[in-house]
Amino acid sequence: MTDWGQNLATMRRNAPLVQNITNYVAMNVMANVMLAAGASPAMVHAEEEVAEFAGFTPALTINIGTLSGAWVRSMLLAAKTASARGTPWVLDPVAAGATTFRRETAAALVALKPTVIRGNASEILALSGAGAAGKGVDAADAVGQAEAGARTLARATGSVVAVTGAVDFVTDGTRAFHIANGHATMPLVTALGCSLTGIVGAFLVGQPPLEATVAALAYYGLAGECAAATAKGPGSFATAFVDALANLTPAEVSARARVTQA
Amino acid sequence: MTDWGQNLATMRRNAPLVQNITNYVAMNVMANVMLAAGASPAMVHAEEEVAEFAGFTPALTINIGTLSGAWVRSMLLAAKTASARGTPWVLDPVAAGATTFRRETAAALVALKPTVIRGNASEILALSGAGAAGKGVDAADAVGQAEAGARTLARATGSVVAVTGAVDFVTDGTRAFHIANGHATMPLVTALGCSLTGIVGAFLVGQPPLEATVAALAYYGLAGECAAATAKGPGSFATAFVDALANLTPAEVSARARVTQA
Amino acid sequence: MTDWGQNLATMRRNAPLVQNITNYVAMNVMANVMLAAGASPAMVHAEEEVAEFAGFTPALTINIGTLSGAWVRSMLLAAKTASARGTPWVLDPVAAGATTFRRETAAALVALKPTVIRGNASEILALSGAGAAGKGVDAADAVGQAEAGARTLARATGSVVAVTGAVDFVTDGTRAFHIANGHATMPLVTALGCSLTGIVGAFLVGQPPLEATVAALAYYGLAGECAAATAKGPGSFATAFVDALANLTPAEVSARARVTQA
Repeated sequence: MTDWGQNLATMRRNAPLVQNITNYVAMNVMANVMLAAGASPAMVHAEEEVAEFAGFTPALTINIGTLSGAWVRSMLLAAKTASARGTPWVLDPVAAGATTFRRETAAALVALKPTVIRGNASEILALSGAGAAGKGVDAADAVGQAEAGARTLARATGSVVAVTGAVDFVTDGTRAFHIANGHATMPLVTALGCSLTGIVGAFLVGQPPLEATVAALAYYGLAGECAAATAKGPGSFATAFVDALANLTPAEVSARARVTQA
Repeated sequence: MTDWGQNLATMRRNAPLVQNITNYVAMNVMANVMLAAGASPAMVHAEEEVAEFAGFTPALTINIGTLSGAWVRSMLLAAKTASARGTPWVLDPVAAGATTFRRETAAALVALKPTVIRGNASEILALSGAGAAGKGVDAADAVGQAEAGARTLARATGSVVAVTGAVDFVTDGTRAFHIANGHATMPLVTALGCSLTGIVGAFLVGQPPLEATVAALAYYGLAGECAAATAKGPGSFATAFVDALANLTPAEVSARARVTQA
Repeated sequence: MTDWGQNLATMRRNAPLVQNITNYVAMNVMANVMLAAGASPAMVHAEEEVAEFAGFTPALTINIGTLSGAWVRSMLLAAKTASARGTPWVLDPVAAGATTFRRETAAALVALKPTVIRGNASEILALSGAGAAGKGVDAADAVGQAEAGARTLARATGSVVAVTGAVDFVTDGTRAFHIANGHATMPLVTALGCSLTGIVGAFLVGQPPLEATVAALAYYGLAGECAAATAKGPGSFATAFVDALANLTPAEVSARARVTQA
């Protein structure tokens, strides 16, 4: 049995600086989530500096939640730099199917070979060309409906693809895992998916992408379970969730991760 | 007696996708507030996609809190699309009287016939041409001073006008209501006014604007009263407020709404 | 012995409107922190209005956390207006040493004579020309290593320089203080440093810069100590911290400030 807590221990030892180009809604939560987990987030997205920063950061994440023309140019610059240097990077294709602008931006980023693509079922279906029902940022499809599309996308891109939802699904196109950790309140707190992308980025530093992604998702879902034990609603859940990210130990993750091969 | 909780029940049944063009300070809180209440917020504001998105969203809100040239273009594009389609939309004229840029932007948006205009007393006075003392984002005038201006503005624009403060005032130019729900800690938490604009937007879907706005304000103020019962300061108030938005039932809103005709 | 609580009492009496040009990560937290403390924050940064607003605001803060070309132009416009009017303003040189864009922007702002420069040790070392190890937004250097650089920077610029960390150091180039208040969880909550810059700005209105800065830091650190008494992790710490900022009295600050001459 894989010891998933070891990936958390390694991430905390690395305490990696992670460059994040993310949306305005998520920036603050994502930074708090990453600090609580033990990483060092840097929100650096200006065209004037994004490539220079990507030239030394050990991991990068890109989230298309709140796009604009200038930001798309920054995303492409940073992703090109990361790909050229072999820096691991994560793509979060928020609402990828909702508008033409999003479809085109997501496709251009996928072409730059992200190490990991993490989205909800509707987003992964949109990227895999299978079409999707979702127009907003919330998933309109179940994870199970996106598993075949995720495998296809992983094989076509060489990326690890993670579909998150009630039970997460992660695949590199050949191997695949289900992660059952998590709690139903998580989608009621905005930007927890976006913030998870940052956690995946931090886990990728010096660790194999498939295992790092699975471990990050198990740890994150488990923090949700801990938060639910005391929360009285989505407000206090968000607070308790950040506490849990800081307080969870690798041993607890090892003991309570609910990961199965798919 | 009107049963104001029914409007909440209808909104939750609709669980509407609402497009919000709002300020950087409010985005995260607004998304959490809307998710907790039962709506599905989407922060979509780029010139490249704003009109396409406004072409299918059932409600739109526009907040001028943190303006720039590009954002103003997006706001006008989205508002024009909403007006042309008959989509309900809400204008939040933050600090409308503070600078020339704000006065001009607010005037251009008012001309596009928002379904509802929601602001504090200073903002509504600025829009109604009565001048205002406020230079910042916090109200320098009391709601009572803005009621005549609100009626004038409503008649001139055809909008429902909501003035929020210690006791809220809502009018369509003919009928008017006071809503006494709320708590004195609410103005100490940033962006609760901005976030209320999103709640009003969600309530507007499929409901008559005047009643929907009154019900949204009563529900929101009541959540503030619930939060105050356990809060130890503005930090824990903010957390408890989001919990209360999720936990309040239509029956509780019906029983505890303090709405009177004005 | 100086009565540091009196500076808090004065700030609350003034309840100053403070214009903040800050980063996307910090905006919401900073507004909540400033409201809890008793100030009135306004996040106004658009080129189209930034100078007009700086023409009447009694204090200004500028933070380079999430830069772009347009924002740099706004920062320079606002700082020039403040300098010309004699309005106190604070510079927060986030990650000043990380990229060429940041080094150049920080240097251009320093040349406009901020009243106070507040940063972590790595940032102050970068500004003082002593070089720094830090590439991200978190300090890689200890406060003690930056004290000589802070004195040099203060003498070269005429600014009060504040280096914040485990024990803070504040100097005007001649006199200097250590402030020992604070708690180890504070760096695990994002944007608490950025938000402190807003508190310093609020304290500067009508108060001598060196003393105002020292008092602001003692108050802020003491709120951290109060928060730690109940917090279960960085999430609940953030909530309790905002509560403490609102609940702390001038008398408590006077009694519990740990300030010594350096």
